[in-house]
Amino acid sequence: MSVMTRINRLREGMSGLGLGAFLISQPESRRYLSGFTGHDHPPMDSAGYLLITETKLLLLTDGRTTEQAENEAPDHEVIQILEKLPVTLSEILSSLKPSRVAFEGNHLSFRLHEEVRGALRNNSVLVPTYDVVDAMRAVKEPEELEAIEAAAMLADKAFTHLLGIITPGMTEREAAWEMEAFMRKHGSEGLAFDTIIASGPNSSKPHHTPGDRPLQSGEPIIVDWGARVNGYCSDITRTIVLGEADKKFKTLYRVVLEAQTRAEERIRAGILGSKADGLARKVIEAVGFGAQFAHGLGHGVGLAIHESPRLGKKSEDVLEDGMVFSVEPGVYLPGWGGIRIEDLVTLQGGRVSVLSRAPKQIESMEV
Amino acid sequence: MSVMTRINRLREGMSGLGLGAFLISQPESRRYLSGFTGHDHPPMDSAGYLLITETKLLLLTDGRTTEQAENEAPDHEVIQILEKLPVTLSEILSSLKPSRVAFEGNHLSFRLHEEVRGALRNNSVLVPTYDVVDAMRAVKEPEELEAIEAAAMLADKAFTHLLGIITPGMTEREAAWEMEAFMRKHGSEGLAFDTIIASGPNSSKPHHTPGDRPLQSGEPIIVDWGARVNGYCSDITRTIVLGEADKKFKTLYRVVLEAQTRAEERIRAGILGSKADGLARKVIEAVGFGAQFAHGLGHGVGLAIHESPRLGKKSEDVLEDGMVFSVEPGVYLPGWGGIRIEDLVTLQGGRVSVLSRAPKQIESMEV
Repeated sequence: MSVMTRINRLREGMSGLGLGAFLISQPESRRYLSGFTGHDHPPMDSAGYLLITETKLLLLTDGRTTEQAENEAPDHEVIQILEKLPVTLSEILSSLKPSRVAFEGNHLSFRLHEEVRGALRNNSVLVPTYDVVDAMRAVKEPEELEAIEAAAMLADKAFTHLLGIITPGMTEREAAWEMEAFMRKHGSEGLAFDTIIASGPNSSKPHHTPGDRPLQSGEPIIVDWGARVNGYCSDITRTIVLGEADKKFKTLYRVVLEAQTRAEERIRAGILGSKADGLARKVIEAVGFGAQFAHGLGHGVGLAIHESPRLGKKSEDVLEDGMVFSVEPGVYLPGWGGIRIEDLVTLQGGRVSVLSRAPKQIESMEV
Repeated sequence: MSVMTRINRLREGMSGLGLGAFLISQPESRRYLSGFTGHDHPPMDSAGYLLITETKLLLLTDGRTTEQAENEAPDHEVIQILEKLPVTLSEILSSLKPSRVAFEGNHLSFRLHEEVRGALRNNSVLVPTYDVVDAMRAVKEPEELEAIEAAAMLADKAFTHLLGIITPGMTEREAAWEMEAFMRKHGSEGLAFDTIIASGPNSSKPHHTPGDRPLQSGEPIIVDWGARVNGYCSDITRTIVLGEADKKFKTLYRVVLEAQTRAEERIRAGILGSKADGLARKVIEAVGFGAQFAHGLGHGVGLAIHESPRLGKKSEDVLEDGMVFSVEPGVYLPGWGGIRIEDLVTLQGGRVSVLSRAPKQIESMEV
């Protein structure tokens, strides 16, 4: 689907909400609505902002990225910010004078909001929005799904590569690098996120950073990784054991796998993210480990590694056909370790279709 | 210098400004003031927040990172955010009732600011701050300087590696990967930023993303890269030519190198960032390319790749001994290409000391 089709859908939404202009600062939304891939360190360093009105499509950027912006965003008029964003913005809006200018409340910094408000004086009201572009991005177009499938397939191949070389004594960092180098050499643009290899007691930390700890036989090893293709991410987790797993591990592994299987079989289009979360959580709570599953069941994946919808205890997001999200129950016991199994899935025809194919059955968990 | 020494300095500053509490959400400032290295995707996904008062040191985090936080930030009391940050924050502050609670205006999102303000009701006023922690971080302690020197040395070695293998026909992406793989294998924690290799006409885009374009003889190739050691970044740029450079290139190269040399020789502690910028800019303006030097002369480098001080046309930052920043004049001619030469430097004894050693003289520019 072209950028213009997305813009037209957004404009319809803006019209319905009485929004005369929309300032987009979130990098992935900016790319989604323009094609511009500029790199930045938001919220302080931004490579550019979109300003979308009924009649204008502007990409405001600084001198370092104007040429790139012109090449990548041919539908937009590229305007170089010579002073600061608020000044440029007020100059542009001084003739249009839209009564309501929308911005992304999750993304604009306190400072920029204050400065833009000051620059617009009382000509326009700034209106925070929270899920306008995010909701559009949550439901994937066929081309987006293709890119995510390619990213999932590349991640699967990296896991096969890891299984061929992983061995006791290799450090977490070395194993993570093997995964990364494989994906990067085979077409991943950077990574979806920093690969996690968490071994033994480290595996009870869901967001562990791989370090110099050597992998040991018999302990849980959580591998959480993803590739990026055409800007789109994949996100998968497996937990493995080198050699033989003990009884405690096997028992817990079965619980987590059962929780995931239950959710993947029973999630339907139309249910809330909280209900999806509950399908898996119930299985883990039933064996007394509810408190040890200290995160949500999943999150949307697309241009951003974390996006809409959310699958968690309190999520009111409605799951819809075309959405892509993770299903990743886990159990973490500080001192002992953890187990997490994460699939990347999409809702198609009302049901879950699993995109990640890396083996996860109890028989394949011992490496 | 220990985290507690930094905290005590911050507390003195807070006391002077009448701030009863300080909420820190910027990831590098959080690490600087706690040791906690949690990964996040700010401003929407944060791994944690510091709340610093006269008597308390709190690290608020979610269930996925509490164990990591406890290990890494032993000076802090780790509190798990069970609901949302604003709720936890208001519970904590309900007994303390500080009249003024500071936050980082550049970093807190509009939404979080609104929610925190709502949760605190009228018990406390939220006060935006802009350079309190940033100013502390700008002047490096000896241990920080050591890490930056190590990151600069690793970057220099990666350039030597590149010079040994770079050849016409290699793509930008392949060359960037060679640099990255070298640094990662030799101890770089991730990268300071995505390596830029911009060849031929691509080199007129200061923030070009390496693509499938094969490198050709005789054209400018900008290489901009940095390593990360103990969290600290390096940042260096060289422009090279495979084979022989033509007259135009050599003339422009001499101008850019002269601009850089002039700045490095004449910058002194005590001058403004704008004056430092002017030292180099004058040289480029004198030959009529002022408009083609469309960015500032440099930026601070530390835990973040872009931090205080700024060296640019309008910067009012005062350069001080112990600061570390880039000196990177450039000239960009769309259609033809560009030249940028960037050193990483520190101010010591009032003068510039250059940390990056990769060759840059006109004789070594042809590879």
